[in-house]
Amino acid sequence: MPTYRSSRPRVIITIGDPSGIGPEITLKALAGLSGTLNADFLIVGDISVINAVQKKIKIPVRSNLISDHNINIRKGSINILDLGYIKDTKIVFGKINPDYARAFIRYISKAVSLLKMNFGDALVTAPINKEAASGVGFGFPGHTEYLASLTDTKEFAMMMIAEPLRITLVTRHIPLADVAKSITENGIIQAVILTRDVLKSRFKIKSPAIAVCGLNPHAGESGVIGNEEKDIIRPAVSRLQKKFKGIRGPIPADAVFYSAYKGGYDAVICMYHDQGLIPLKMTSRDKGVNMTLGLPFIRTSPDHGTAYDIAGKGIADPSSMMEAIKLAVLLSKNTRAI
Amino acid sequence: MPTYRSSRPRVIITIGDPSGIGPEITLKALAGLSGTLNADFLIVGDISVINAVQKKIKIPVRSNLISDHNINIRKGSINILDLGYIKDTKIVFGKINPDYARAFIRYISKAVSLLKMNFGDALVTAPINKEAASGVGFGFPGHTEYLASLTDTKEFAMMMIAEPLRITLVTRHIPLADVAKSITENGIIQAVILTRDVLKSRFKIKSPAIAVCGLNPHAGESGVIGNEEKDIIRPAVSRLQKKFKGIRGPIPADAVFYSAYKGGYDAVICMYHDQGLIPLKMTSRDKGVNMTLGLPFIRTSPDHGTAYDIAGKGIADPSSMMEAIKLAVLLSKNTRAI
Repeated sequence: MPTYRSSRPRVIITIGDPSGIGPEITLKALAGLSGTLNADFLIVGDISVINAVQKKIKIPVRSNLISDHNINIRKGSINILDLGYIKDTKIVFGKINPDYARAFIRYISKAVSLLKMNFGDALVTAPINKEAASGVGFGFPGHTEYLASLTDTKEFAMMMIAEPLRITLVTRHIPLADVAKSITENGIIQAVILTRDVLKSRFKIKSPAIAVCGLNPHAGESGVIGNEEKDIIRPAVSRLQKKFKGIRGPIPADAVFYSAYKGGYDAVICMYHDQGLIPLKMTSRDKGVNMTLGLPFIRTSPDHGTAYDIAGKGIADPSSMMEAIKLAVLLSKNTRAI
Repeated sequence: MPTYRSSRPRVIITIGDPSGIGPEITLKALAGLSGTLNADFLIVGDISVINAVQKKIKIPVRSNLISDHNINIRKGSINILDLGYIKDTKIVFGKINPDYARAFIRYISKAVSLLKMNFGDALVTAPINKEAASGVGFGFPGHTEYLASLTDTKEFAMMMIAEPLRITLVTRHIPLADVAKSITENGIIQAVILTRDVLKSRFKIKSPAIAVCGLNPHAGESGVIGNEEKDIIRPAVSRLQKKFKGIRGPIPADAVFYSAYKGGYDAVICMYHDQGLIPLKMTSRDKGVNMTLGLPFIRTSPDHGTAYDIAGKGIADPSSMMEAIKLAVLLSKNTRAI
């Protein structure tokens, strides 16, 4: 396999669960972005799936089908690496299918192996179905943890981006009842450091301003409404402030987003999912992009799931996927420009 | 005391804690709104405090000082009911003062007794200091509970308003760790019914559309991330839907505010403080208004505290107080127009 020597950023895209809207939004996004980004794209998936979707949505795509033995990226084409797992050309949408699940797991591992060989700058992943994955023994809650495992990454975090907001979550998909006992000084410190690193190295922000949210109403009002600020968050922030400039907190969550939205912070560290996702989605709806921090490569993804209910109907909105691809290209260029 | 027979809405305003910014924002707000609202205003407080503040901020106020024995409201003036509790004309700002605390509690009870005598349409309360209040044996967490007690109100709730958003809280100032165990089917039902009532009777919305938020990320994903949606919120919503149209939920909190902000709902029922306050303050900053639902009269207040750190400096921003007064007038007019 040739090494990657192109002068243009190269983004690898996995099509996700064939049953879901992943393949559709991948093709729609690339068609929509065609010619606007100075970058090459390599889709990793099955040509049987791509063809089935193309028949449905009737988007003319200039594709370049390539095999694992000779990856020859063609400029201006959509390069498709056919892994040949799904032979049946009749794709059934909107249903859990164990064969499809095994296939989409392999798309990811294949993409990562290409990235490990330095064959691309960034990975964009279309959504997978968690239930389908766990049905075939996938032992990870989602992409993020699987990617961390494949790359031996111990410290990672999830950032969601919808400019001007960037938020990093300290806890992710856990019940609200478990949030308070799940936040730790080290977890907060890790989230801040990973955030600061990506802002500097990928977003090229020299001195990032980072806000750390409180957990309780009014950030606890000095312990009147909860002690996590005093016991966990403030100590974490103090330790960080000794080392870095630009870290502030704990700030009441209902106060911080007004300034963040006006550009007052480069990122906001949130203690739990909805603390960050409520303001982010309120203003961006479905244009938010997920990014995994801590991996050895750039990884973005759209901020939604497989949407089985509308899969195969040609009506899926590719906006978030387009944003994920655009961000992957932008950050690839930023990183190369070092 | 004469009965209230004016054709204009009359709003009673308590000046709040003399140590805080309450008296200042009251005067600034009334000066700023002067002539714009077809309504009469009656300030309840101490003239010693008003004078001290007026000296500081140098706003010319055409005031009409009245006593308890002969409340003679003058149109176009700021009518001040001097309760004469604070004799010392030298007011010390920014510090807890038990005498001031006793005074501000009496401003509230006096205002309520006037409202009970049907002497006004609405109450606007400037902020009080909770620590100062509890220091003199005030046995209530804040205004809301005290007003409920004074009026024998058993079912009440707090709504925050910053158009186009209106949110009602199911739980208020409690640690996040206690939220999940504090929400109940009845609590949700009560919040929805109080919200629906005020939207119909005061806001004059014929068929209110009300969204009920989930508690967990993605509203629990059918029990994958927490059970409160299945066990508490959905049953509450189902019971409500049998009786009323226009109630929807549980909706993921990170999805509901996009539509609410576009006017898709007349109100959003939130399970906890920051769930509602994050989106509200993000867009309105300090222009949000609190409203107590369930009281026999309209009651609004600014969405901030006494701000001891800037009290007496003349730099307090009256925006939220102005909004609180404007809303009180608007709802008074709406209600009279029945």
